[in-house]
Amino acid sequence: MKRSLLVACCIIVVCQELQAQTVEKLYPGIWKITCGQPEKYLPTDFKMAPDVEALSKIADRDAEPFDLRAIQFKEMPKGVVAEFKLDESEKIYGFGLQVNTFQQRGMRRDIRCNSWTVGNVGFSHAPMPFYISTNGYGVLINTAQYVTFYMGSQNKIAKSAGLAQDLKTAMEQPGTSPAELYNRSYRPSNDVEIMVENAHGMEIYVFDGPAMMQVMQRYNLFSGGGAIPPLWGLGLKYRAKTSFNDQQVMKFAQYFRDKHIPCDMFGLEPGWHSTAYSCSYTWNPKNFPDPDKVINTMHGMNYKLNLWEHAYIHPTSPIFEQILPWSGDYAVWKGAVPDFITKEAREIFGSYHEKNLIHKGISAFKLDECDAAYYHKAEGEWSFPDIASFPSGIDGVRYRQIFGLLYQKTMWNLYRKNNRRTLLEVRASHLFAAPYGSVLYSDMYDHSDYVRMLLNSGFSGLNWSPELRQTESEEDLIRRMQTTLMSPHMIVDCWFLNNPPWFHYVRDKNNNNEVLPNYLELEQKVKRLVELRMSLIPYLYATFARYRFEGVPPFRSLILDYPGDGEVLKIENQYMMGDALMCAPFIDGASEREIYFPEGNWYDFNSKKKYEGGKSYTVRMSLDEIPIFVKEGTILPLAEPVEYITPATVLNISCHVYGNPVKPAVLFEDDGETFNFEKGDFNRIELSWDKNRGKVVKQGKQKRQLYKITNWVNY
Amino acid sequence: MKRSLLVACCIIVVCQELQAQTVEKLYPGIWKITCGQPEKYLPTDFKMAPDVEALSKIADRDAEPFDLRAIQFKEMPKGVVAEFKLDESEKIYGFGLQVNTFQQRGMRRDIRCNSWTVGNVGFSHAPMPFYISTNGYGVLINTAQYVTFYMGSQNKIAKSAGLAQDLKTAMEQPGTSPAELYNRSYRPSNDVEIMVENAHGMEIYVFDGPAMMQVMQRYNLFSGGGAIPPLWGLGLKYRAKTSFNDQQVMKFAQYFRDKHIPCDMFGLEPGWHSTAYSCSYTWNPKNFPDPDKVINTMHGMNYKLNLWEHAYIHPTSPIFEQILPWSGDYAVWKGAVPDFITKEAREIFGSYHEKNLIHKGISAFKLDECDAAYYHKAEGEWSFPDIASFPSGIDGVRYRQIFGLLYQKTMWNLYRKNNRRTLLEVRASHLFAAPYGSVLYSDMYDHSDYVRMLLNSGFSGLNWSPELRQTESEEDLIRRMQTTLMSPHMIVDCWFLNNPPWFHYVRDKNNNNEVLPNYLELEQKVKRLVELRMSLIPYLYATFARYRFEGVPPFRSLILDYPGDGEVLKIENQYMMGDALMCAPFIDGASEREIYFPEGNWYDFNSKKKYEGGKSYTVRMSLDEIPIFVKEGTILPLAEPVEYITPATVLNISCHVYGNPVKPAVLFEDDGETFNFEKGDFNRIELSWDKNRGKVVKQGKQKRQLYKITNWVNY
Repeated sequence: MKRSLLVACCIIVVCQELQAQTVEKLYPGIWKITCGQPEKYLPTDFKMAPDVEALSKIADRDAEPFDLRAIQFKEMPKGVVAEFKLDESEKIYGFGLQVNTFQQRGMRRDIRCNSWTVGNVGFSHAPMPFYISTNGYGVLINTAQYVTFYMGSQNKIAKSAGLAQDLKTAMEQPGTSPAELYNRSYRPSNDVEIMVENAHGMEIYVFDGPAMMQVMQRYNLFSGGGAIPPLWGLGLKYRAKTSFNDQQVMKFAQYFRDKHIPCDMFGLEPGWHSTAYSCSYTWNPKNFPDPDKVINTMHGMNYKLNLWEHAYIHPTSPIFEQILPWSGDYAVWKGAVPDFITKEAREIFGSYHEKNLIHKGISAFKLDECDAAYYHKAEGEWSFPDIASFPSGIDGVRYRQIFGLLYQKTMWNLYRKNNRRTLLEVRASHLFAAPYGSVLYSDMYDHSDYVRMLLNSGFSGLNWSPELRQTESEEDLIRRMQTTLMSPHMIVDCWFLNNPPWFHYVRDKNNNNEVLPNYLELEQKVKRLVELRMSLIPYLYATFARYRFEGVPPFRSLILDYPGDGEVLKIENQYMMGDALMCAPFIDGASEREIYFPEGNWYDFNSKKKYEGGKSYTVRMSLDEIPIFVKEGTILPLAEPVEYITPATVLNISCHVYGNPVKPAVLFEDDGETFNFEKGDFNRIELSWDKNRGKVVKQGKQKRQLYKITNWVNY
Repeated sequence: MKRSLLVACCIIVVCQELQAQTVEKLYPGIWKITCGQPEKYLPTDFKMAPDVEALSKIADRDAEPFDLRAIQFKEMPKGVVAEFKLDESEKIYGFGLQVNTFQQRGMRRDIRCNSWTVGNVGFSHAPMPFYISTNGYGVLINTAQYVTFYMGSQNKIAKSAGLAQDLKTAMEQPGTSPAELYNRSYRPSNDVEIMVENAHGMEIYVFDGPAMMQVMQRYNLFSGGGAIPPLWGLGLKYRAKTSFNDQQVMKFAQYFRDKHIPCDMFGLEPGWHSTAYSCSYTWNPKNFPDPDKVINTMHGMNYKLNLWEHAYIHPTSPIFEQILPWSGDYAVWKGAVPDFITKEAREIFGSYHEKNLIHKGISAFKLDECDAAYYHKAEGEWSFPDIASFPSGIDGVRYRQIFGLLYQKTMWNLYRKNNRRTLLEVRASHLFAAPYGSVLYSDMYDHSDYVRMLLNSGFSGLNWSPELRQTESEEDLIRRMQTTLMSPHMIVDCWFLNNPPWFHYVRDKNNNNEVLPNYLELEQKVKRLVELRMSLIPYLYATFARYRFEGVPPFRSLILDYPGDGEVLKIENQYMMGDALMCAPFIDGASEREIYFPEGNWYDFNSKKKYEGGKSYTVRMSLDEIPIFVKEGTILPLAEPVEYITPATVLNISCHVYGNPVKPAVLFEDDGETFNFEKGDFNRIELSWDKNRGKVVKQGKQKRQLYKITNWVNY
């Protein structure tokens, strides 16, 4: 089959050389450029329908952001190349969940799904062929192939004496240090070159602004709009050690309730499977002899239960033999790799999960290892190879790029079918994933990288979860816990720890059941942080509603909110959480850091100290203070913390009014757990402040009351 | 032009699907397998003629080592794939100058030229699509494309219930630690899959044994035979700091003579150029106002002068404008990248070097940066991109793989044309490089890696130079110096150090001109080591002659000499230096290590202590002892050390006879510096030991006397 496909492609190339591209306007501010022979299995083949109505509400300047017909295409042995120019001053961001780079001008980005960064070449577990420019447009290559972007990273050499003259002016004596030798290497370049490997054509989508915020709104709404998590998804999740049995799980479930530390979701790691690596998807009879009892007990304690798995199917799994014909020709960890492009694989995998796990009461899954460790230590390598073939006809190269995307979509669709929202964890993703209600996470653990990824997630329609595991110190523990609080999903992941990290943050000591002398004090600090998270739920929920209906990324770099401010172009350790809160995490246990405040005034969330915008300050904060700053003119709704969300929960809200004049705030109220809001079944609660009095206006037909406004405070 | 090439390829694929392969026997024990449409620019296009006469002397068992017609070929979107089976017990070695792996069964090897290893996936500055098997054959893929080898590293999944049953027997409870989860991942696999990217056909060369030694002999002789360095190339080379001017260079040239520390070659680093990074190839007028005087003075002191360069040509270089039309379309460090496939680029680059540098008295070059830093930190990245095009029609992907090969060949040919031998340093290489008289080196610096590369060099027709730079301690200094002594080329590379590392081994202190309290003592230790190197010259010279005439790798893993010994299959820190000496470097300043002795008896070179073979011993050695062991039955010719080699040098040799019975040893005697030996202009001096008397038989027509046998010692 593959042979004939290849031959077919070649015939087309022979008959149809690369002609000039066609340019088509799809929606306001969204163009599609096509050149050459399209590939099979494009990311757009798997995406949700765009939110056309919401797209139509974004003003269209009705002009191409740059000359789309000036893009030059050519074929090379390795693939198809597109070439065009950047402005001298333009800056570039994006490329999915990049780990160790923020500003991407001058970089080469190799878009390859890999668990580890491999230096800094563009690899990530959710890399994307999509970037945005400070000139107010986005460029997306619609492909699952490997793509390389040269973003002004290479210098063309003009074959003329003119260039020689130009370069001669740069004549220098050689430097004397290695740094000098290497650093004077490149002249600035304005060339963008994009290569799609193994392709005979290219599809480019261009998203217009005019500003970068509108680029991201258009991208997210074109994807189908951002997912709104279930209300309980905004609380804390605790993942217990993989070796735990039912009694050990119960002990820690009870711990949170005894200590009144809020916790909404409890996650079980590989040990719940009768076999893992690869997975059986059946309960481990030794550790969990009565799974229904575990589920019921957890539900009785108001926990949502979350199960770890990956999609490599062990031969002992009940679905193995049935799914084998719809799997690839290579095993991963002895397991079959289902081809989620085929309806059959989705149905076999999905109906098993639906019947045996979701209908039994499992609220969410952690979808692990769907990236790859393909450029790493050989011993730790896993993935199907490039040469793998799948029943749909896709090869290992492309399937590896979109495997995580298709896996999360398959699982999310099961919940959607049952009209229940979920919040998945997933280890890999790709284009157009915003609607799937999942957060990305990683085995990498650098705190600075984790913060940078929160910014980069805003350029890619993803949620990023900077989870807490072991730490180096008390300071590191609390600061990381703060960062996970200031993220889409608050997780303490103890999959290799006996006890919560605040018992002992050092891995081995924790596993020896040693406790820190002051662990009860740390426990109280942690409790207060989770309570603060619970207080932020109404604000966060409204923020995600805006992601859904307007495409505004909930967590994002300052450049989206302050596009005219040159200072923010390089800031990769501060970000917006919604429209009103700026987060500035303290890294590596620091108690002092530089913070830049954009225009306007800002208030320290803790002390209410006021900072004048347009300046940087050195800010000191104790471990009892959270590095959140409130924009002047904000009405911040803070809930009285509850220990968990139930279908009956009503949150008592204080409205905190910062400065004057004040912009109205909007709360989103629905049933908190279904997709009924899509049919208009929700309320819009507008909070405003006028003449020193708070005003609440509720509109909508939703009966369920989530919120009760109890008082107002003005600073 | 590229467009039409591509279209042509496609037509051929359409017209000519992959038929069964053709198998052709080229020479005794060498087969060529061809399938599909051949690529343009194969490594064989650039190789020297094979030494057919020498090849014919290796016994031919006249049977294919495995069924060459059973190799299965298929086309996939990414390239052409060959598949066949390994025996259950077979072990695999090779893939060029692999850095962090020795035994390659179970590994994926991505053959890509890169300065850094990038985890452990097969990247190296001299990776090669060539491996050898303990079953006594070698497989070489004749391509400059990226190649991926899956050496039993991936598990196919059979789509039958049988497999499920088979795998069910492996059912296990999930492990409780991360290590357990990941480690039980793969079943052993016997599948070899090889993918050549962007290709529509494949050429495989198979080299027969019967043992691995004959595989390597056939490969090296097919390449044209190994290069014999000039006699002076076997002494010490010192590379001085890049910022040094003529006076500073002279000071250190005088230092070696004053201290009577042997030194044959002196190397200048980038600072000799008027511009470096990229290069002008003209002298820096400030630091070297009178280059002829420098050259003459150095020659007067009996030094050979070596110049650093790379082949990125700065616009201020006299050859820039002339070579521009014969260069690629992208600059590296602002410089033009000559297309050495074109005769024009070779001639412009070569004739300039010949006239202005070689004819002026430059004896050798260090050819730097012809690898790439393409998978590394983005800031440190350099190379032309994959999408580069060159005048010959080759693209950046393939040219990057063979750039170092073509560069060294171009430079070596200049010396050959002038009938002078040289010993180049080069940073990248590829297939069939044995004849070019060069050593590989690297910016990497792990001592274990350096030793492992000495072993791996023997599987690839390369010389590897584990150069000494800064160190961590006195012990590290002396042990690294010992390893560079026990290598093809002894180098102390002070390109970023003010002083020799024995003044101070710590970089910053060295550059502050601080000296160690015992630096004079260290200097004496170093002196004795260089003197030992000078003593070994007759033995090493004969070893390289055997490389040339018989293809036997001079430095090699024990598996080539002891193929029947299962113990040596994993030993990656001991190696043979020629036929008689086993080296077992002490790493990281250790004073004790395990050493395995293969069959027969062995003598500690220092104490003459005897070790019985077939066993391991814990061996302690002081810093005054060199970890060299002499095989029983050896006649080891040791020269009285001289400070440098001149055209008049006659080395006085003591023959050291180890044990009884003794095999004759052979010395190679020629003029030491030209290619006249190729016309038979050399002597063969056979040393034998009979009835407690040494016997010397000299045959040949060479008049120049290199050696004088002065006495015999028997242990």
